[in-house]
Amino acid sequence: MTLPDPGSSRRTRIRRLPENAVHDRATLNEILDEGLVAHIAITGKDGWPRCVPCSHARDGDRLLLHGSRASRTFRRMAAGAPIAVNVALLDGIVYARSLFSSSMNYRSATILGVADPIPAADLAATLLILSERLLPGRVGQARDPNERELAQTAVVALSLAECAVKISNGSGADDGDGDGDLPIWAGVLPLRLAAEAAQDAPDLMPGHPVPDYVAQRFRTRTDASC
Amino acid sequence: MTLPDPGSSRRTRIRRLPENAVHDRATLNEILDEGLVAHIAITGKDGWPRCVPCSHARDGDRLLLHGSRASRTFRRMAAGAPIAVNVALLDGIVYARSLFSSSMNYRSATILGVADPIPAADLAATLLILSERLLPGRVGQARDPNERELAQTAVVALSLAECAVKISNGSGADDGDGDGDLPIWAGVLPLRLAAEAAQDAPDLMPGHPVPDYVAQRFRTRTDASC
Repeated sequence: MTLPDPGSSRRTRIRRLPENAVHDRATLNEILDEGLVAHIAITGKDGWPRCVPCSHARDGDRLLLHGSRASRTFRRMAAGAPIAVNVALLDGIVYARSLFSSSMNYRSATILGVADPIPAADLAATLLILSERLLPGRVGQARDPNERELAQTAVVALSLAECAVKISNGSGADDGDGDGDLPIWAGVLPLRLAAEAAQDAPDLMPGHPVPDYVAQRFRTRTDASC
Repeated sequence: MTLPDPGSSRRTRIRRLPENAVHDRATLNEILDEGLVAHIAITGKDGWPRCVPCSHARDGDRLLLHGSRASRTFRRMAAGAPIAVNVALLDGIVYARSLFSSSMNYRSATILGVADPIPAADLAATLLILSERLLPGRVGQARDPNERELAQTAVVALSLAECAVKISNGSGADDGDGDGDLPIWAGVLPLRLAAEAAQDAPDLMPGHPVPDYVAQRFRTRTDASC
């Protein structure tokens, strides 16, 4: 089944700065695959909105959201509460010559829908997808969940059918405000998530060095040149 | 006026992993001051939740949220819609010896309330607070907003009275599951926001080098040693 393009439903159409709207699913997938934190908006039992960060993994055309079976948010989601999920990546800070035109560069994906609980029979396999996403290389090394752990874990799946993607990617150049000749620097400070040196667990036994799938994670060419 | 401690209202009490709840305002302030992206949960006109990332600045005991006067979210907030705002900082990835105990280290702050629009007379001064927070050192260098720009800008202020703070700070050590003798590395990969080299705007005129308040931002001792 082919899903509709991002931003194509009435309520996902980008109205503010529509020139920043992106309509291809490849970009949606890229944002969801790079981001490590998703934010869930859900209405509480008292009618007040709640905003809950959680970990996620894209599995094809659905987004897996990972939590505890004891979490009220996960119980409400599993019971069919409507949700919105946003994953936002901060890519840089734009220093324009005016404060007004200064901004942040970001990539943002929002999905609207009702999530489906993952049935108990599929939970173990689904958790491996989440683990491989959050801890690439770790599955098969670390111990798999046992029955007691599976019973405490909740995963829901949200279809990516209804979504919106927005990208802001400014350069700091004057955008017609006539500020181009102000005598100050303008440009972008690019930002990214970076890793420091891995820290051994205090109970680590000798002879178990940091594996490459940890040491090399979030490394870039810039780091390697240090 | 002294505000109540984080987590002290019925609906902000941390029920899941209450040992991770933090009840001091200093930690709340630290999270809000370090985070660059806030997520707003708000109910749409259609009754469906929305989840909207935006920039923010703490101003004493209130949180300023910055947007456009044309934004539906900001219009609903200014009209008194209930909201929840979360700022989450990802501090590291915890590689336990079991997949179940593996997790992310984070600091998370959530505020519930109704935001007040900043009156037009206070908008210029409030925008300078936001600018100084998002672009430290830039106020006084870049051009201040003019009347036309102020008319396009919306800022709302959310009291920090009702809030919850949660911190997860695991080490990867076995937590009593009997996995301590599994022959694999365990520990934490610390994460942080890092800057790459600043990029000049394409229309930058010669003679305006990158200022220190940009070049030194997000630098740490680790970077300096490179």
